[in-house]
Amino acid sequence: MERILKISFGIFLMYSVTISMAFDEELIQKGELRKACSKRGNAAPPPQRVNTTMRLIALRELMSSEVRLFTHPVDAYLITSSDEHQSVEVADYDKRREYISGFSGSYGDAIVTMDKAILWTDGRYHLQADEQIDCNWLLMREGHKNIPTRSQWLKSQFPKGARLGANPQIISEYMWRKLTHELAEAKIELVALNVSLIDEIWPKNERPAKLNKDAFVWDIKYAGKNFTTKIKEVRELVKKAGADAMVVTSLDEIAWLLNIRGRDIPLSPFLRSYLIFDMDDAFLYVNWKQLEKNDVFRYLHAKFEFKHNDTVQIRNYTEIWTDLRIKSQLYQKILIPSHCVYSEGASHAIYEHIFADKRLPHQSPIIYLKSVKNPVEIEGMKIAHIKDGAAMCKFFAYIEAQMANGKIFSEMAMASILDDFRYQQLQSLGNSFTTIIGFAANSAKPHYIPTRNTNANVYNNGTVVIESGAQYYEGTTSVTRTIHYGEPDSLMKDAYTRVLIGQMAFAGLTFPNNMKMADSDVLVRKSLWEVGLDYLHETGHGIGTFLGVKESPIAIQYDLEVATKQTFKSGQFFTVEPGYYREGYFGVRLQNVYQVIDKPWLQHTSGHKYIGFKTLTLVPYQQKMFAFEQLSTQQRKWLNRYNEEIRQEVGAELKRHNSMEGFYWMMENTKYIPENGAAIISTRFTLISALVLSLKFL
Amino acid sequence: MERILKISFGIFLMYSVTISMAFDEELIQKGELRKACSKRGNAAPPPQRVNTTMRLIALRELMSSEVRLFTHPVDAYLITSSDEHQSVEVADYDKRREYISGFSGSYGDAIVTMDKAILWTDGRYHLQADEQIDCNWLLMREGHKNIPTRSQWLKSQFPKGARLGANPQIISEYMWRKLTHELAEAKIELVALNVSLIDEIWPKNERPAKLNKDAFVWDIKYAGKNFTTKIKEVRELVKKAGADAMVVTSLDEIAWLLNIRGRDIPLSPFLRSYLIFDMDDAFLYVNWKQLEKNDVFRYLHAKFEFKHNDTVQIRNYTEIWTDLRIKSQLYQKILIPSHCVYSEGASHAIYEHIFADKRLPHQSPIIYLKSVKNPVEIEGMKIAHIKDGAAMCKFFAYIEAQMANGKIFSEMAMASILDDFRYQQLQSLGNSFTTIIGFAANSAKPHYIPTRNTNANVYNNGTVVIESGAQYYEGTTSVTRTIHYGEPDSLMKDAYTRVLIGQMAFAGLTFPNNMKMADSDVLVRKSLWEVGLDYLHETGHGIGTFLGVKESPIAIQYDLEVATKQTFKSGQFFTVEPGYYREGYFGVRLQNVYQVIDKPWLQHTSGHKYIGFKTLTLVPYQQKMFAFEQLSTQQRKWLNRYNEEIRQEVGAELKRHNSMEGFYWMMENTKYIPENGAAIISTRFTLISALVLSLKFL
Repeated sequence: MERILKISFGIFLMYSVTISMAFDEELIQKGELRKACSKRGNAAPPPQRVNTTMRLIALRELMSSEVRLFTHPVDAYLITSSDEHQSVEVADYDKRREYISGFSGSYGDAIVTMDKAILWTDGRYHLQADEQIDCNWLLMREGHKNIPTRSQWLKSQFPKGARLGANPQIISEYMWRKLTHELAEAKIELVALNVSLIDEIWPKNERPAKLNKDAFVWDIKYAGKNFTTKIKEVRELVKKAGADAMVVTSLDEIAWLLNIRGRDIPLSPFLRSYLIFDMDDAFLYVNWKQLEKNDVFRYLHAKFEFKHNDTVQIRNYTEIWTDLRIKSQLYQKILIPSHCVYSEGASHAIYEHIFADKRLPHQSPIIYLKSVKNPVEIEGMKIAHIKDGAAMCKFFAYIEAQMANGKIFSEMAMASILDDFRYQQLQSLGNSFTTIIGFAANSAKPHYIPTRNTNANVYNNGTVVIESGAQYYEGTTSVTRTIHYGEPDSLMKDAYTRVLIGQMAFAGLTFPNNMKMADSDVLVRKSLWEVGLDYLHETGHGIGTFLGVKESPIAIQYDLEVATKQTFKSGQFFTVEPGYYREGYFGVRLQNVYQVIDKPWLQHTSGHKYIGFKTLTLVPYQQKMFAFEQLSTQQRKWLNRYNEEIRQEVGAELKRHNSMEGFYWMMENTKYIPENGAAIISTRFTLISALVLSLKFL
Repeated sequence: MERILKISFGIFLMYSVTISMAFDEELIQKGELRKACSKRGNAAPPPQRVNTTMRLIALRELMSSEVRLFTHPVDAYLITSSDEHQSVEVADYDKRREYISGFSGSYGDAIVTMDKAILWTDGRYHLQADEQIDCNWLLMREGHKNIPTRSQWLKSQFPKGARLGANPQIISEYMWRKLTHELAEAKIELVALNVSLIDEIWPKNERPAKLNKDAFVWDIKYAGKNFTTKIKEVRELVKKAGADAMVVTSLDEIAWLLNIRGRDIPLSPFLRSYLIFDMDDAFLYVNWKQLEKNDVFRYLHAKFEFKHNDTVQIRNYTEIWTDLRIKSQLYQKILIPSHCVYSEGASHAIYEHIFADKRLPHQSPIIYLKSVKNPVEIEGMKIAHIKDGAAMCKFFAYIEAQMANGKIFSEMAMASILDDFRYQQLQSLGNSFTTIIGFAANSAKPHYIPTRNTNANVYNNGTVVIESGAQYYEGTTSVTRTIHYGEPDSLMKDAYTRVLIGQMAFAGLTFPNNMKMADSDVLVRKSLWEVGLDYLHETGHGIGTFLGVKESPIAIQYDLEVATKQTFKSGQFFTVEPGYYREGYFGVRLQNVYQVIDKPWLQHTSGHKYIGFKTLTLVPYQQKMFAFEQLSTQQRKWLNRYNEEIRQEVGAELKRHNSMEGFYWMMENTKYIPENGAAIISTRFTLISALVLSLKFL
């Protein structure tokens, strides 16, 4: 029997692969076969390979140097792809795993021993990793059979115990404990090194500079609530949890709390910083130069000579470590963010810098406050999605026109054009994540992102899955549509229609507010399940307002434990993104952003409130993909109402921009759908009546 | 803010009421107002009142007699309505709470102190209890505002600590602990008395005899698996759980395990007994005279001179108590059934008779084995439901014909007629629970059971909710239909149709076998929620095969924690019974029994199996109650397929019995439903075409 293990080692907590527990000894020794790495063969290596020989020599030298480590040598060293704040996207400065291995993908962990170097990554990146890492490296292709996990591999290498070094500032306490636990039986010790080995060996002149872009205030006209109020609310929750201080380590939480944005992380508007606050004071640890422009100092009341009650004191980014040790002695308990849905919580180093009896590990109360948006944010999200709909219509109109003229685009070229249309929108800071355009067999990979190795031309004989989103001052967006530029076959239409029916079933749900998130997933998947189809990823997740595109705590997935415990709250926003993937053939995914809304006109006898959803995303579905015979009258009516809303809201926006191409494309793609067969026949009926009448007059 | 508390003190674990924590001091002193109990008034008391004065004097005398209690006096005594086996229905012999209070309803607990006597019961029984208990008693009407729980009331009476006596053989360990915990802060001690006080004061000549009906073997042609195989399977699970013996206390588990049935409990075919088995031996504690007839001794291999490996040794029912003490010393660990969904688990006395270090509290593994039916049982359930459908059709045909002749039936008269039609079926042992017939305002009470106090005549100006079921040798049934004998109004039709749509949405679900039970509930409730309607009871529960009509572990309820953890397994049977109740006006409930079936032709990519449901209940819906315009083509098709199945299966059964009245009623009530408006118009279209053609020929 195969068992499903969650490989939640890296940042993609949700990505699960099936592996056999009885893994192949040979695979452990060799990794899987590498291209052009045979000792006997002499094929030319791919040109993109990065020579890591000198880097590995330097690393291993460090690993065995007691003097430079300030501790005993380590037998292995772990390099993950995260940063100090457990950010989903990390700055080039923090791409330590890429430096040591040459592999540039977003997901993957490396372990280096004195004689081996191993990289684990998942199906999205198997090809790319093989092209990028040189023959010093073994590749563990997660998702393939018999691939050991990090712990399993380490246990096979060091059956009698060993020391695995790692950077405790980069690895969350949650992962640290998990790994420690997994390695305990083999007596392998996870050692927190005070020296970050990759930072030591990475030459200054080769390393990308830390982004130190100027931070800016997220205006109250978008934020809707000032930071002093927010801090006050969080303080109350911290107190309630039993602490008198809190350390905030997640960048989106700091951005939300202080209404400050930055550009230190790609695709997310975050400022690299830590925050400690107690019941009276707040301390922001940051490169203070980033606050000089844009009046952020003054905004935080940080420059007054006397401290005000709403002053945020500015301290240097690295002072957090000494401050934590000192301050933790003054407090009764410090709340340290623990793991919560997608948020990994504070790093192992943060935990270790606080005296054990002062620690209160607890889910960050900011996560829950942040997820319920205020009326100004709600209005902003609405505006952001109208803008986004307009950008999408312009993009589709442009591509269709060009393709009609015989132009052929690659996936990456299309993505770049779409990014341009998004960036042209007012108040746009560009993408909220890397645009996904996948054609035909590529669209059949649920987590596909086009790369130079996979980039395909988009022709008219397959489906194109297009997933993209933007950061606007008003809010964050994310939308997926599936398009066919030729004639879709009946399998494609069937799958598309079932996915669409799932979206509509979800959108139409009204429910008492004690219903659990997981319950709603059945509505989305039901029409796929009916014929034995499904998708092996979550149905949806929370989304921020001018923050992260994937935000805790909302997680919609019927087989995810946390989703069986949480309920929706009015004012929350999240995505729903069902799909279907037929390997090597085609893929379909449709993603909308929803808002949880009150339905106060409905009264539940038990006292629960009735709530429901509002579809925020306003981008037409491609009617060519509909299997019309599967759509009921009710569903057709729903689609016509949705199209009517696009015409009103996005139509007005397109007109404002004078984008007639986008407008006409939108009008053409929101055309009225006959609401039942009867209606069509009725028309004929009238014709016949007229005929009968005319015959009478003969 | 009001809080929802689960009053799970008695046997109706699922029945929840809303009470305010700040209850009224006066209510505590007086109970609520009693009819004809005013000290000033002199209204004649209801004739059914039972004079409990002497009984209470006798009880209080005992409560204060150290000599007779063999311990210190108790300040209060608790009398619940269960029996030693935590049975849902109890024999008259065990109706201790009825003896002391006079109240005969199925649910309610009594507490007697030296100067007060209090009865708690729920909305179904408020009226009946008031009519039956005399003025010695205060009535706590659960569901009304400010009604204290048992613990709250006790704490108000004895703020400084007291001794509450109870019979530990009757109260489950689960409830014992709960109550002990609730009373701990007030230092009220729950005392297990060795003397069962009601048994002491209940005169032999007044007490109904213990039922000692002859047990019988449930033939292998129905059971499908012999008891030695079953015991072997259970032994393996007990071992796996870490024990080398188990005590079985629940009567349905013993009946299932040994394939033995009895008639000691009303409405359930159980034999009053305990069972202890270890890895070699099995001991049945029972009145051995009940095994003499029907060859049960021989069947259990109990009469051989030498013990065989499949011998069940027979011991006297009361020997369990000494045996438990002795045997528990021989075993490493004894598995003692703990609470599991609807099963309360073993009594406090069972726990106490086993040495503490030998106890292994664990959910009974029999519950899970029992819930998955074998192929023979599955076939039996199918046959039982065809028989049941035939009985229902005969009943409906008879009632309709009689009413057409001007006859008027009361609810109880109708119930009695329905019971007769059921009992007439071959291999029928009668009802599986008390038949519910509720008319108009009575039908609007979700837990209504007609009693002499509430019995209404059924006229043609309201809905009738009819819930009933039978015990056949082949299996157990339970079905609810809602009928209107006149013209239903649009509110009734709307509610009925929404409930029906819920049933159909559920029936049509196909899903991977990792979906949780709770998830499916949303499909049942969705169409009601849409317009702010709902029902405040569970959607469904497991059902046995010639066993209990409500069986663990299946529980379908979106807001019930256990339902968010359990999954369906192929071969399980359960009910789905959504409804809608408009207070004082009308009620609707539709209940079917479903079977979980494999769908092996569908393959899930993750390796999960696809499963789905089969509707077993074959009783027509009343088409008069349909709001046709709300039914989609798909739903109409579903109804036509369902009706076709009734015609085939139940039609053949009715013909076999030569019941033409039933047959014609069935045919009339399963008539074809036009599958869409288009179809009707098409017909007209053809007519017009013909007209056009004929005109042409003119």
